[in-house]
Amino acid sequence: MSEPSHHGGNLRLALQKYGLGSQGFVDFSANLNPLGPPVRVLEVIKNNIDKVYSYPDPECTQLKERISSQLGVAEGDVIVTNGANELIYLICAHFSGGKALLVEPGFSEYLDAARAFCLDVAFYFLREDRNFVMDSDDFLNSARPESVDVIFICNPNNPTGMMISHDEMVKVVRGCEQSGAFLVVDESFVELSDFPDDSVIGLVKKFRKLLIIRSMTKSYGLAGIRLGYGISNSDLICNLLRKQPTWSVNSLAQLAGEAALTDSNYLARSRELIALERKLLFEGLMRPDIKTYPSNVNFILLRLLNNKISPWNFEDYLGRRGIIVRNCSNFMGLGDGFFRIAIRTKEENLRLLAALNGFQHDAF
Amino acid sequence: MSEPSHHGGNLRLALQKYGLGSQGFVDFSANLNPLGPPVRVLEVIKNNIDKVYSYPDPECTQLKERISSQLGVAEGDVIVTNGANELIYLICAHFSGGKALLVEPGFSEYLDAARAFCLDVAFYFLREDRNFVMDSDDFLNSARPESVDVIFICNPNNPTGMMISHDEMVKVVRGCEQSGAFLVVDESFVELSDFPDDSVIGLVKKFRKLLIIRSMTKSYGLAGIRLGYGISNSDLICNLLRKQPTWSVNSLAQLAGEAALTDSNYLARSRELIALERKLLFEGLMRPDIKTYPSNVNFILLRLLNNKISPWNFEDYLGRRGIIVRNCSNFMGLGDGFFRIAIRTKEENLRLLAALNGFQHDAF
Repeated sequence: MSEPSHHGGNLRLALQKYGLGSQGFVDFSANLNPLGPPVRVLEVIKNNIDKVYSYPDPECTQLKERISSQLGVAEGDVIVTNGANELIYLICAHFSGGKALLVEPGFSEYLDAARAFCLDVAFYFLREDRNFVMDSDDFLNSARPESVDVIFICNPNNPTGMMISHDEMVKVVRGCEQSGAFLVVDESFVELSDFPDDSVIGLVKKFRKLLIIRSMTKSYGLAGIRLGYGISNSDLICNLLRKQPTWSVNSLAQLAGEAALTDSNYLARSRELIALERKLLFEGLMRPDIKTYPSNVNFILLRLLNNKISPWNFEDYLGRRGIIVRNCSNFMGLGDGFFRIAIRTKEENLRLLAALNGFQHDAF
Repeated sequence: MSEPSHHGGNLRLALQKYGLGSQGFVDFSANLNPLGPPVRVLEVIKNNIDKVYSYPDPECTQLKERISSQLGVAEGDVIVTNGANELIYLICAHFSGGKALLVEPGFSEYLDAARAFCLDVAFYFLREDRNFVMDSDDFLNSARPESVDVIFICNPNNPTGMMISHDEMVKVVRGCEQSGAFLVVDESFVELSDFPDDSVIGLVKKFRKLLIIRSMTKSYGLAGIRLGYGISNSDLICNLLRKQPTWSVNSLAQLAGEAALTDSNYLARSRELIALERKLLFEGLMRPDIKTYPSNVNFILLRLLNNKISPWNFEDYLGRRGIIVRNCSNFMGLGDGFFRIAIRTKEENLRLLAALNGFQHDAF
């Protein structure tokens, strides 16, 4: 067996390993919107293929206008990026050589970007006995935000699946501001969660040291074409823009983003599907050899309880049946036996459950 | 009149200013391949729109393999980027806080990126009385490469249009290596020049402090979707990859790049068209109020000689006729009255010449 992949969604590796055609796979390892991109997005790309030839608008003017009007923020407070991930790297470049505080288990790109830009990194660990849900008081008292320059918090948290409430986040935002640290709240999954209105984007007007990351890659299923954005005060946005390569956001992504934002009930439909299917998956996953952790978003963290089962065999068993899951053993604070599965369509989820039903630890 | 645009190719600004539909314009301001993308590139995008949904291969495996085999370099010596421009920013991030030497007039992104990453910048100026062609001895003797960490040389040079020979470049590469400075040779236009075989990619195996930039954006007309790459020693490539956001190169760009590289005579056809049309444009531009500078690539630098003509009026006169040119007044070492025009198709070039024939300095 090869080592666990660094990220979910690497279909090339899966194809290589299991030799099925890409149509033969269901990818539970990438936590994208299960609906796929809105139909109008695919149409707008198809109708604008000739845009491949000319330069993108370097300012993303129209998309930025739409984001700003939908969110009720000033255009100068918005940066559009080549996926949310580019924004993480721009933030780390901005705080280059400083000190970062990361919450673990968490998205590994924060650490990769922090290390690439020589940040000194401290960690705050979420507790398994609290289902990896952050407690704001404990965080502010024990994580020592006053000792760092920048803090990354993912809410809802990836890969653990829980969102902390708006009230709790307000406490965290206020505490961080008082500590002098800059707070990055990565809301890449908030639009696919049960509580989209618990976003703290509204706080950007009030707090100076706060940036919110959003991922249209995740929310609208645009991973292949890359689209994200950030909301913060215009001074910080200007600084990040200076470090962002000109024309970073390609023409098709800009058009796709504009089209996606006009589909007014796509996100509501997505959340409805996710909530319904998550419930059915939780029921199907109730078995003595698997522990699931609560989730209010589009993925579920689970743990194999029977330590006779090798996680690699588990992954491989599913892989050979065309089902790719995210092995979470390389997340700090998790370790062997943890997996993340995305909530997908009913048909796909049933395929996962059927495969799991056939899984016995002595089947190897 | 608004201030001159920071870059060519900003169609949005032109549309705003002159109010013609985008079909009404011919864009001479962006120096892209006049043929447009190879047909197979548009087809492969059209046939793979569903790839928008899943993550790009973060390693660009197949495209990298193809680049490496076509150029005869090791795969570990290649970095694929979100346009050549991302590579310029990655290089400046790598040399962050150090000292850079730039050749002027030159591509403004080197300076923007250098400043964004706090490099101290020194300049070497090409001389107008030498048609802005670099003399290797003069450069090595007077630019003091030994006093800097990184040097950017664009060959053929943008916006001035001349390529220095392979022998001259070898002297520069050797001199820079001896001085201890790292040399970046931006060959974004070499594949569209008369001397594609004068590339110094072959020297990467021999010299440790050398990186070559290539732009598929320019060579294959992929500006809207972004694609570039760099060739250097694997140690430096590894360092740059660490600072590059994961999934930076989108799925459609990777597929487009693979398809483009299979079109074996597209570049030869492009060079043939460019050389022929450049000759006709030079002839058409022979008039007492315009000076042209020699070019062996897909654009021409020119200067208005009649100082009664306002450059803004000249730009505006053409703009109102649907012709966008690159006002070069904001290039260091040029100033008012310089313009760059791309070589385009015969029909388009004739349209430019017809508009110029109608242009009289007293027409305003």
